[in-house]
Amino acid sequence: MSLLKFSRENLIRSSFRRFARSYSRSAITKRPHFPCVEAHAVRESQLRQTTFSSIPSSAQDTDDLESGPEPPYARPNPKSYHVYHDPAPLELTYASPLLSFDVAYETWGTLSSSKDNVILLHTGLSASSHAASTALNSAPGWWEKFIGPGKALDTNQYFIVCTNVIGGCYGSTGPSSIDPTTGTHYATNFPIISIFDMVRAQFRLLDHLGIDKLYASVGCSMGGMQSLAAGWLHPERVGKIVSISGTARSSPSAVAMRYAQRSVLMADPNWNYGFYYNGLPPHTGMKLARQIATITYRSGPEWDLRFGRQMRPILEQSPDMPRTPALCPDFLIETYLDHQGEQFCLKYDANSLIYISKAMDLFDLTASSLTANHLLSSSSTLSISASPSHKTSHSKSHPPPVNPAPHLTDLAEGMQPLAKIPTLVLGVQSDILFTVEQQREMADALRMAGNEQVSYYELGGVWGHDTFLLDVLNVGGAIRGFLS
Amino acid sequence: MSLLKFSRENLIRSSFRRFARSYSRSAITKRPHFPCVEAHAVRESQLRQTTFSSIPSSAQDTDDLESGPEPPYARPNPKSYHVYHDPAPLELTYASPLLSFDVAYETWGTLSSSKDNVILLHTGLSASSHAASTALNSAPGWWEKFIGPGKALDTNQYFIVCTNVIGGCYGSTGPSSIDPTTGTHYATNFPIISIFDMVRAQFRLLDHLGIDKLYASVGCSMGGMQSLAAGWLHPERVGKIVSISGTARSSPSAVAMRYAQRSVLMADPNWNYGFYYNGLPPHTGMKLARQIATITYRSGPEWDLRFGRQMRPILEQSPDMPRTPALCPDFLIETYLDHQGEQFCLKYDANSLIYISKAMDLFDLTASSLTANHLLSSSSTLSISASPSHKTSHSKSHPPPVNPAPHLTDLAEGMQPLAKIPTLVLGVQSDILFTVEQQREMADALRMAGNEQVSYYELGGVWGHDTFLLDVLNVGGAIRGFLS
Repeated sequence: MSLLKFSRENLIRSSFRRFARSYSRSAITKRPHFPCVEAHAVRESQLRQTTFSSIPSSAQDTDDLESGPEPPYARPNPKSYHVYHDPAPLELTYASPLLSFDVAYETWGTLSSSKDNVILLHTGLSASSHAASTALNSAPGWWEKFIGPGKALDTNQYFIVCTNVIGGCYGSTGPSSIDPTTGTHYATNFPIISIFDMVRAQFRLLDHLGIDKLYASVGCSMGGMQSLAAGWLHPERVGKIVSISGTARSSPSAVAMRYAQRSVLMADPNWNYGFYYNGLPPHTGMKLARQIATITYRSGPEWDLRFGRQMRPILEQSPDMPRTPALCPDFLIETYLDHQGEQFCLKYDANSLIYISKAMDLFDLTASSLTANHLLSSSSTLSISASPSHKTSHSKSHPPPVNPAPHLTDLAEGMQPLAKIPTLVLGVQSDILFTVEQQREMADALRMAGNEQVSYYELGGVWGHDTFLLDVLNVGGAIRGFLS
Repeated sequence: MSLLKFSRENLIRSSFRRFARSYSRSAITKRPHFPCVEAHAVRESQLRQTTFSSIPSSAQDTDDLESGPEPPYARPNPKSYHVYHDPAPLELTYASPLLSFDVAYETWGTLSSSKDNVILLHTGLSASSHAASTALNSAPGWWEKFIGPGKALDTNQYFIVCTNVIGGCYGSTGPSSIDPTTGTHYATNFPIISIFDMVRAQFRLLDHLGIDKLYASVGCSMGGMQSLAAGWLHPERVGKIVSISGTARSSPSAVAMRYAQRSVLMADPNWNYGFYYNGLPPHTGMKLARQIATITYRSGPEWDLRFGRQMRPILEQSPDMPRTPALCPDFLIETYLDHQGEQFCLKYDANSLIYISKAMDLFDLTASSLTANHLLSSSSTLSISASPSHKTSHSKSHPPPVNPAPHLTDLAEGMQPLAKIPTLVLGVQSDILFTVEQQREMADALRMAGNEQVSYYELGGVWGHDTFLLDVLNVGGAIRGFLS
């Protein structure tokens, strides 16, 4: 720690000197321009100006950062969604309970008098409860084309509930919320959360709404994890499970890709160990993290078709001269990533991204992991044998694998509570984040656990992980067929 | 610019205030620890201390940054390799010529009296000329197991020359070199370079050594690009071409992955628009960039086997309690990426990484790209038709594709100069950076161009792009067979 203190003192002095020198030198030395890098400073300046304009000038010199600008997520419009406040503690997998919590939610369709037509829809990492437009909020939602009369989630039949997950920043309790015990933002004093914790909060909302049993639990990406976790925690309360491009245990390559995002975000000095709520948000780190994320959401073949090696147009370019490349974006694929990062960097809370991304990494339904995390007592696990006699109880047309790997047997043991719930598993062959191997693993483990009602589809196409947002025909069709 | 200036002035003031406040607050508020983030400050402190200890204390307050610490690449040992200085200009694809240049190189084996046994070995992005140990430098090289008596590149038969590429930082002229016209480091005033420029410098060295014709041009990864470019620029001077996990035109997904690396590096305030040679290097940005690169060098299946979901051991962990996860690395895959980044971050020059990575993105042997960049005059292109009559001139056992895509015809036209040079194309099915589709494209285009001596191999295995560094048996065997 003494080394660190020394370093911080040095950083203070030398950062100031470096900026000062850099600034004075730039005024006298001609240097190349880097618009893609300067954009970070421009954005910061704009954020700061927004603040300045709303603060009396006398306060600016001392308080500009303490009363910092607020990105959009920090100005929620609670009239556009419902909020359920639960004053009782929420049990957490890895930490002491949250003493109380909020869950933001929206609904579509009509709850039947017997309350038997409820679909709980789970979101991916950064989505809000606004899955589709509502009377309260007419803006299109993130799954607009999949929700409505006659659509995949048919509002003529079903009452659909979607929440913002615990840990998020769109109305539910998360790191950007005020800790009632301190009166300040939780920041990184927020506890580590799990996918199970998100689902626990959702079921507290269902209890409040008087909904005993779900017709179905439906989710894509991280929502697929929640969908499985819902059936796992409450097998008797979940009628059907839909997992689209989800996984039953995060793979090391997915952990690697999310770790790279967290690393660039946490290295942004504005992140300030998570305590940025009274200052400027880590907008540069968020942009860089989103650029990396975008690479994992689509696929190379899509970019081949969509961008190829096309370059962005240069107005001043002469047709007689070779184009002079730059170190900033030249290719359309680069401007696309830049744009995706720029669009996202102030839309979502950085700490929410870190906490929820970590919850995804930690998700693992193998019996050994569940036992280690006290989600399963060691005495309650059922042994799944790979013996032929065990297999005869399974679906004849889709038998489980003949010689399952040890981790598959472990996963099948952990997924035992899902043995009686009809489950739709759908994956995409071009998905590099939730690979098709992970989809097969999930279906195999369910079948090994004795589930005879596993519907399994693989989609082709070039849209990668984002297929669930785009392919209304195939994804929507599979869901409609499975739910009906 | 006025906005930017305003922003920079604010940055200076507010960065100082933020650091000061952060420091004073941290002394009184208990906050979570983030060793993975604090490591950046610790590293910076150590770099600074190295400097302090070598400077008289009276100079420290004013000159610490101007006489900043030197990372290892800034202290080259010119006795461990040869340097060819060429006082004449070097033609460049995208910019005015370099007025003079250096090429660092090493050799293995013995040059025959007729100088007909020369293999020019090309490196990947960040490698030096030290491909294997020599009398001047006994440290193992980056291809140690492939070079030597009886090995893939057999020093009993061949005289092997390996250079540090133009743009690099291990003895050849690059952004960290002193610009003779200004007396200071080029930094980002260094011109944009191409793969062709690297090869042009290499052939100037060959001219100097009196070597007229290469027995073979051999390279892996970016070295494969150079290997093709050598044959393209000097078909009459290259006997055989070996491209291992290379490509004939960078794909948008590879551009995306390199763009993400450049972005995080250029966002590091220490990068300072490339002018960091008198200060601290952008070590944090380099670490983050290397973490991303590492993801592209290996494969998910390897990590499944090697790390799975294993977590790093925690000494203080009680077996009776669930492990408490952290926002810093928990999984072995995370500590692996962290370690890879940490090992690399001071070994290589950040500007070299940016320039050479860009050169890889720009590499494109399609006729349309070569023409646009004035590497090919529009009148000199030969039209490759996809008609059956054209195809009859090709290898019968491996005919070119029946209905080639337009880009493939374009590529075949561009690769026309390689039609007579026997070429080995080897790729790896688990490579996500230079995908197997790119290898097939290269082989198809060569065959469409009329090359009847294309040897083509695909390797399985889980090592991804790094296979060329690891698989001595298969990669080495294919090269030995092809060269003999």
